[in-house]
Amino acid sequence: MTEFEQRRRTAADRLAGAKIEALLVSSPANVRYLSGYSGSNGLMLLTGDGEWFFTDPRYGTEASANITCKVQVCKGPLIKAAAGMAKRKKLKKIGVEPSWLHLGEYNEFLEALGAGVELQPVASLVEELRAVKSPDEIAKIRHSVRVNSEAFSRTMNRIRPGARENEIAAELDFQMRILGAEGNAFDTIVAAGPRSALPHAHPTKHPLGEKELVLIDIGAMVDGYASDMTRVAYIGTPPKRIREIYKAVAEAQLAALDAVRSGVPVYKVDAAARRVLKDHGLDKEFVHSTGHGLGLEIHEAPKIGKKEKTRLQAGMVITIEPGAYVTGLAGVRIEDTVLVTERGCQIITQTPKKLFPL
Amino acid sequence: MTEFEQRRRTAADRLAGAKIEALLVSSPANVRYLSGYSGSNGLMLLTGDGEWFFTDPRYGTEASANITCKVQVCKGPLIKAAAGMAKRKKLKKIGVEPSWLHLGEYNEFLEALGAGVELQPVASLVEELRAVKSPDEIAKIRHSVRVNSEAFSRTMNRIRPGARENEIAAELDFQMRILGAEGNAFDTIVAAGPRSALPHAHPTKHPLGEKELVLIDIGAMVDGYASDMTRVAYIGTPPKRIREIYKAVAEAQLAALDAVRSGVPVYKVDAAARRVLKDHGLDKEFVHSTGHGLGLEIHEAPKIGKKEKTRLQAGMVITIEPGAYVTGLAGVRIEDTVLVTERGCQIITQTPKKLFPL
Repeated sequence: MTEFEQRRRTAADRLAGAKIEALLVSSPANVRYLSGYSGSNGLMLLTGDGEWFFTDPRYGTEASANITCKVQVCKGPLIKAAAGMAKRKKLKKIGVEPSWLHLGEYNEFLEALGAGVELQPVASLVEELRAVKSPDEIAKIRHSVRVNSEAFSRTMNRIRPGARENEIAAELDFQMRILGAEGNAFDTIVAAGPRSALPHAHPTKHPLGEKELVLIDIGAMVDGYASDMTRVAYIGTPPKRIREIYKAVAEAQLAALDAVRSGVPVYKVDAAARRVLKDHGLDKEFVHSTGHGLGLEIHEAPKIGKKEKTRLQAGMVITIEPGAYVTGLAGVRIEDTVLVTERGCQIITQTPKKLFPL
Repeated sequence: MTEFEQRRRTAADRLAGAKIEALLVSSPANVRYLSGYSGSNGLMLLTGDGEWFFTDPRYGTEASANITCKVQVCKGPLIKAAAGMAKRKKLKKIGVEPSWLHLGEYNEFLEALGAGVELQPVASLVEELRAVKSPDEIAKIRHSVRVNSEAFSRTMNRIRPGARENEIAAELDFQMRILGAEGNAFDTIVAAGPRSALPHAHPTKHPLGEKELVLIDIGAMVDGYASDMTRVAYIGTPPKRIREIYKAVAEAQLAALDAVRSGVPVYKVDAAARRVLKDHGLDKEFVHSTGHGLGLEIHEAPKIGKKEKTRLQAGMVITIEPGAYVTGLAGVRIEDTVLVTERGCQIITQTPKKLFPL
């Protein structure tokens, strides 16, 4: 049995638990997880005794060659083909993914199914399986992280004061691609000076000047899997206040890493980082969660947040990324990709942690 | 009145025509069109006598500074904040965007609104406004096209046989970024040999060899606006069959361009390309539509397809991109970005059209 067949079986086994006969899979990442299909227009119908994959003629050749479940290449809307199959199988209660199915497709599906069929929103059925990674997936994430770190290292060797944020971002992205990435896991962030305090700044044409902190957040997609890393650099000798903020965030990150272990509820990991920042009077400057799972998507389960109760499991891969954003001055974030283990964690990201001098 | 205020007024004026009091705007491109907001988490509520923009604290600073309608920075789900505003305004019939609102958010919105409020799917209200571009938008698309063409030209000067598909893609993307793009409009396609016949191939590590055709499809996002261009190159002297296919597609593209004019139904533009390919016995090898509108999104209204009846209007910006994909041999596509005018069209893309020698 291939890994994809195994996953489809595991997902199908969970249908009964969700009190449904079938699941319409709309999330592109879930479709990829269950089929290996990496295009932009795929849909799956999962039942207790069979699985169907639907796509359009652009992807017909690739899909028929590579996907091991039943493949239907559709000229019209995929959702109608899925409804046709559901009718032939006389399905009466079908789960749908509320975070992925659009209202329009939902209505189209319902209408094509006709009377007597009930649709039920079933959140995260496949996402929950995806949270714990297989050895093959972990190997792919390690590879993605290596690409990410190597691109960072090559770029850091080339950055000189005067380089523009967007040029540095272009170089980082180029290096990731040359090293085998199919693309970015997200828009690369290179933010200098006070703009580093905007947690989601876009690179501008601003040239790096003396006495500026630069925040760099990058992630690669390699073979479908994401990586995610943030480091900060300083041009010139960092003043005391910058060193203090850096030290506080670095301590907070270590505290959160220390808290990671199979069985621990994630809010405790978040609290560990938040506590350190509070000790340094920077808790109000930490305006996001401590981390998130990653895999086929850059953000996936579990979210490492203040109120999240999920327990960590060995095989989960998450980011640990506390930050402190002092408006008008600078923002610091330190982020690694880590693998949860029975006894703690493995930090997959090998890039050194320091306030990089430039 | 700013351009954004003008657009919001025009959109609000159309609510009555759709028989609704308000519209919940979920599409990121529609939100950007109406507000200027370019982040990843924004939502708008448009009514006849006011407009509200909702985002989370990460974007609070930027949004409050730049957006001219009422801004609400929300700690919880934006959809609940929008429902709260709708209740305060005592709205009874609200339009929602069926292609953008997820089932889960729809249910959450409905529940938060409480009894007595009706939601109605209203497709494309803002999208229809977006189809005809303002002079400012056309200037931005021209800029995006220039970046696209210049990146192509710089990269073509550097390609040597032996270069890998993914290296060429990385170079194209790098050049677009250096030239001011914030990113790609879509994943760059560089497909050599028989893989050029897959209309949506991903770049691989395959090195360009002698006697191979290479298809390159690139688009930039510059200042929020997309561009889109496809060209093909051949390494060595192209054999007769390749030259025939190229010539047929080139003729088809010119025929489609000739058919473009304000007032013409788009299916006639598609038919013009298809007719030429049929004359060359290649109509079955043309497996997609002739083009699409582009702007804030890479694919937007109008679709230039076989059964589409929309009439072209001056100010629309569309692609013209017929292709012929001969399985096992090669695929050729030639694509320009063009502006529809009263009397015909302006081809915005300035890159020469030829079978580029390599």
